[in-house]
Amino acid sequence: MTAAVAPPLSGGVSGAAALKPLVRTVLEALAEGAARRDGPIPAGPPQELFALVARALAEPAGNGLDDDALRRLTALVAAGSADPSDPACAAHLHCPPLAVAVAADLAISALNPSQDSWDQAPATTALETLVLDQVAELVGYPSTAAGVFTSGGTESNLMGLMLARDRVLGRATGRRIERDGLPAGPRARIFASAAAHFSVRRAAALLGLGEDTVVTVPVDRDLRMEPDELAVALRECVRRGELPMAVVATAGTTDTGAIDPLNACADLAAEHGAWTHVDAAYGGGALLSDRLAPLLAGLERADSVSLDWHKLGWQPVAAGVFLVRKAETYASLARRAAYLNPADDEDAGYSSLLGLSLRTTRRPDAFKIAVTLAALGREGLGRLVDACHDLACAGAAAVRAHPRLELHGDPVLTAFLFRYLPADAALADRVNAGLRRRLLREGHAVVGRTELPGEGPGRVRLKLTLLNPHTTATEVEQLVHLVAGAGAAEEAAL
Amino acid sequence: MTAAVAPPLSGGVSGAAALKPLVRTVLEALAEGAARRDGPIPAGPPQELFALVARALAEPAGNGLDDDALRRLTALVAAGSADPSDPACAAHLHCPPLAVAVAADLAISALNPSQDSWDQAPATTALETLVLDQVAELVGYPSTAAGVFTSGGTESNLMGLMLARDRVLGRATGRRIERDGLPAGPRARIFASAAAHFSVRRAAALLGLGEDTVVTVPVDRDLRMEPDELAVALRECVRRGELPMAVVATAGTTDTGAIDPLNACADLAAEHGAWTHVDAAYGGGALLSDRLAPLLAGLERADSVSLDWHKLGWQPVAAGVFLVRKAETYASLARRAAYLNPADDEDAGYSSLLGLSLRTTRRPDAFKIAVTLAALGREGLGRLVDACHDLACAGAAAVRAHPRLELHGDPVLTAFLFRYLPADAALADRVNAGLRRRLLREGHAVVGRTELPGEGPGRVRLKLTLLNPHTTATEVEQLVHLVAGAGAAEEAAL
Repeated sequence: MTAAVAPPLSGGVSGAAALKPLVRTVLEALAEGAARRDGPIPAGPPQELFALVARALAEPAGNGLDDDALRRLTALVAAGSADPSDPACAAHLHCPPLAVAVAADLAISALNPSQDSWDQAPATTALETLVLDQVAELVGYPSTAAGVFTSGGTESNLMGLMLARDRVLGRATGRRIERDGLPAGPRARIFASAAAHFSVRRAAALLGLGEDTVVTVPVDRDLRMEPDELAVALRECVRRGELPMAVVATAGTTDTGAIDPLNACADLAAEHGAWTHVDAAYGGGALLSDRLAPLLAGLERADSVSLDWHKLGWQPVAAGVFLVRKAETYASLARRAAYLNPADDEDAGYSSLLGLSLRTTRRPDAFKIAVTLAALGREGLGRLVDACHDLACAGAAAVRAHPRLELHGDPVLTAFLFRYLPADAALADRVNAGLRRRLLREGHAVVGRTELPGEGPGRVRLKLTLLNPHTTATEVEQLVHLVAGAGAAEEAAL
Repeated sequence: MTAAVAPPLSGGVSGAAALKPLVRTVLEALAEGAARRDGPIPAGPPQELFALVARALAEPAGNGLDDDALRRLTALVAAGSADPSDPACAAHLHCPPLAVAVAADLAISALNPSQDSWDQAPATTALETLVLDQVAELVGYPSTAAGVFTSGGTESNLMGLMLARDRVLGRATGRRIERDGLPAGPRARIFASAAAHFSVRRAAALLGLGEDTVVTVPVDRDLRMEPDELAVALRECVRRGELPMAVVATAGTTDTGAIDPLNACADLAAEHGAWTHVDAAYGGGALLSDRLAPLLAGLERADSVSLDWHKLGWQPVAAGVFLVRKAETYASLARRAAYLNPADDEDAGYSSLLGLSLRTTRRPDAFKIAVTLAALGREGLGRLVDACHDLACAGAAAVRAHPRLELHGDPVLTAFLFRYLPADAALADRVNAGLRRRLLREGHAVVGRTELPGEGPGRVRLKLTLLNPHTTATEVEQLVHLVAGAGAAEEAAL
C-alpha cells in the first residue's frame, strides 16, 4: 500500500491538518443530530432506535477517503443520545463535560500515548504523576501518597479491596496472597453500608472472596452508615473467628449523596486492624468547594480512596482516580515486564507507571484534568459544584411544595430522591416506574429511579441528579412539574 | 452561578459551537508541538522533560474562559510525546490512529454517553451490541456469542479467566464461586506458554488464585506453545489431583507475534474439561487480512477471546474486545442494580449492557470502530495489515543482510526481534540496552527491547513493531541502519 492510498493518520504535523476537515464534519454532525433530537433524549420506543442503528450499520463500507460514514454515524449517535447538557436530563451521575475538557481529550486521541511505558508516553508519564500529587493534596494525603487514574469508581474500589486483601489477609496468614492465592483459613470480611455501591460486592466476587464476604451494615434514614452498627458487626466478626479485612465507607452514595461518618469508620477499622477504603467517587467532588469540603472531614485518614472526575468534575468518561495514603501499601501490584519497564531503564530515569495500574495499555486521562485545573483552578470548579448544590436545593424545595410529590430527604450534594403519590397508594411503584418510562418515550425528560435499601413494596423512588451548572432554578422547578404531570397522566392511564 | 460565568459545555447544538474555537486551538497546538519535537520522541534526558512538565503545571490557573491553558499544555504534551506515526517510532504495539477514528472519538467525548444504562446511552447501547455481532462474525463465532468492549487485552484476559474460574471451578465443587468465594478444595491450574502475556499471571493474582496457579508451558524456538508439553502438563495436573481450569493460548505474542497451535490447544482443553481462552489482542488483527487470517484457524473454537483494535486496528486507546462463544457462560457477571437496570425497564425494551462488563461507567469505544469499519470496511483495514506485514518482512531482510545484526526469526505478523552483535559478546546486553537508550536520548528512534523466555545472560533483544502503513520499506531499512550505527557508537563509548 502506498501512502497515497492509506487513509491519513492523526499524528505529527500532517496529522493535525488531516484532522481539520474531519473534526469540522464531526462538529457539524453533532449540531445537526442535536437539532434533530430536539430534547434530552430521542422520543419513541427503544426498539425503533435499535432498528435505525442496525440499518445505518448495514450500509456498504466506503473507500476510507471521504467523510460520509463519519458524518452519517455521528449525526445518528448525536440524535440518539441522552444529552446531559439538557436541563431535563438529570437522572444519573452522568455529567455534561466542559468543552475545554473535551477539546483536551481530542489531543490525547490524536497523540495516542499509552501510560504503560515511558517510551509510549514521555510527557504524560510525568503529567500523570504530577496531577496525582495535586489530587492527593486535595484529599489531604501526606507526600507518601501514590495512585493512578482508573476507569472509574468500580475499578478504584476493586483496587482498594485488592490491596486490602493482599495486605491484611497476607499479614494474618503469613502468605503472599497475590502469589499463593487465598488461604483456606479464617473467612475474611468486608464491611459496607446497605447503601454502598454494588461494585463493592462485585469486587469481592472478582477477588475470589465471594459476594457473601460483604457484611451489610445498616444505615440511618438518610442512608448513612450507623457507626454503632458497624462496631457491633466488627465485634461479631472477631467473635466468630473471622478476619475483619476492610471497612468501605461511602462519601456520597449514588442515590442520595449520603456521606458515612468517615472518622468513626476510620477509628473502628484501625481498632480491628482492617483497611479503610472510602468510595468518594461522587462525594470527592465536594473537595473542590469551600462550602461542601467540610463534609469530607476524615477522608485523609483512609488507606485508599476512589474519586471520579467524570461525576462532579465535568470530564468526559473516563476520569477515575485511585489513591493510597502510603505508597508502600501498593506493593502487591508491582510488576516487572522485560518489554515495558526493565530495571536498568528505570535506573536511567525512564520511569514507568505499569506497577500502579490493573491495566497495561492505558490512555492518559490525567491530561484533560490537568487542562481543566489549569483553565479554571479549584476555585472555578468549586463554583460549579456550588451551583449544582444550589440547583438540588431548589429542586427539593419545589418537590416539597408540590402536593402530589414526596421528598425523601434534603440534598447533601447535588441529588435527591422523591416520588409521585397516586391516589391509590398501592399503585405507587407502577405509577412512578411508569411515569419515568413515559417521559423517556415522549423524549421530554430523563429522570432517575431507584429503590431504598431494605424497604418492602412501594419502594420505587425517583431521583434527580443535578450536574449541569448552566441549568437555572426555574428549569429545575419546571422539570419537577413535568414529572408531576407525567405522574398524573400515568395514573389516569392505568 | 449564571450561565454567563460558567464555562461552556460540549453538549447540544451550542456545544458544537463552543467546541469549534477550542478544537482549532488543539489542532494548532498539536502541529506546533509536533514541529517543536521534530522527530519520533523528544530528545534529552527524562528528568529534563519531567521538570518542564512540572513548571507548566505550576503556573497559576486561568478564569476558565480563554484557551491559554489548553494551547500551552497541548503543545507541551505534543512536543513531549512518542509519535507512533513517525516511521522511526516502532517499539511497541502502539499504533498510530487513523484520523477518522480520532474524529469519531471526539464525538463520543462531546456526547459523553455511558454504557451502563440505556438512559445514558440509547443509540450507543444498540451500536455496541451490533458492532460486537460483526466482530463475533469475524472471529467465526456462532450467533450464540456475546461480549463487551474493554480497556484492552489485560481486562479481556481477566474476564476470560474469571468466567473460567466461576464455571469450571463452580462445576467441580458445586459452589457458586462468585457468591461463596474460592473453595479450599483442589488447586485450580491455568496453562499458558512461557511467552504468554504477563497479564495472565496478573489475572490469576487478582482472582485470588495466586500467580503460582499458572503453569508455564515450554515454547519452541519461534515462541509457540509446544502442544506435547501442554499434554504432559495437563496429565501431570490431573495426576496430582488438581483441577485443569483453563488453557490460555496466545494468538500473536507481544514480542514476536507467535501464534500457539490453536486447534491442538482446544482439543487438549476439551479433553480435560478446561476452558479455552485465546489472547488474540495482537493477532486478532490478522482476521482483517485474507493473507494472514488462515494463521488463526481454530480461534472460533475458543470459549473466550481477547481482541484489541488499538493494536492492529488503528484506533486510539482504548478499543479492546472480549467475546465468549456462548452467552450462557457469561452468567456469573450478571448484576441487577435498581438504579441502572430494573427488571420492568428491561421488560419494556430498555436493555442494559451492565451485566456484560467489569466496569460501571463506560465510554462507548464501539463507536470509533463502527465509523472505521463503515469508512474502510474489512478490506480496507486488511490492506493496512498487509502493508505492515510487508514492512516487517522488509525490516527483517535488512537485519539479515547486516553483518553486525542478528535476526531472531522471520516475522509472523508485523514484529520481529533482533540484536546488535558487539565484538565482545559478553557486552551484548549492555550494548543493546544502551543503544536503545542512546536513540531515545538523541530523539532519533523508539525501538523496543525485550528478553527471550528462559534464556540466561545475553538475552536482551531489540524489537521492531511495524504498525504504520504509511511507512515505506526504505524508511524501515534506514531505521535498521540507524540502530546498527547506534550499536557501534555505544560499543565505542563503553
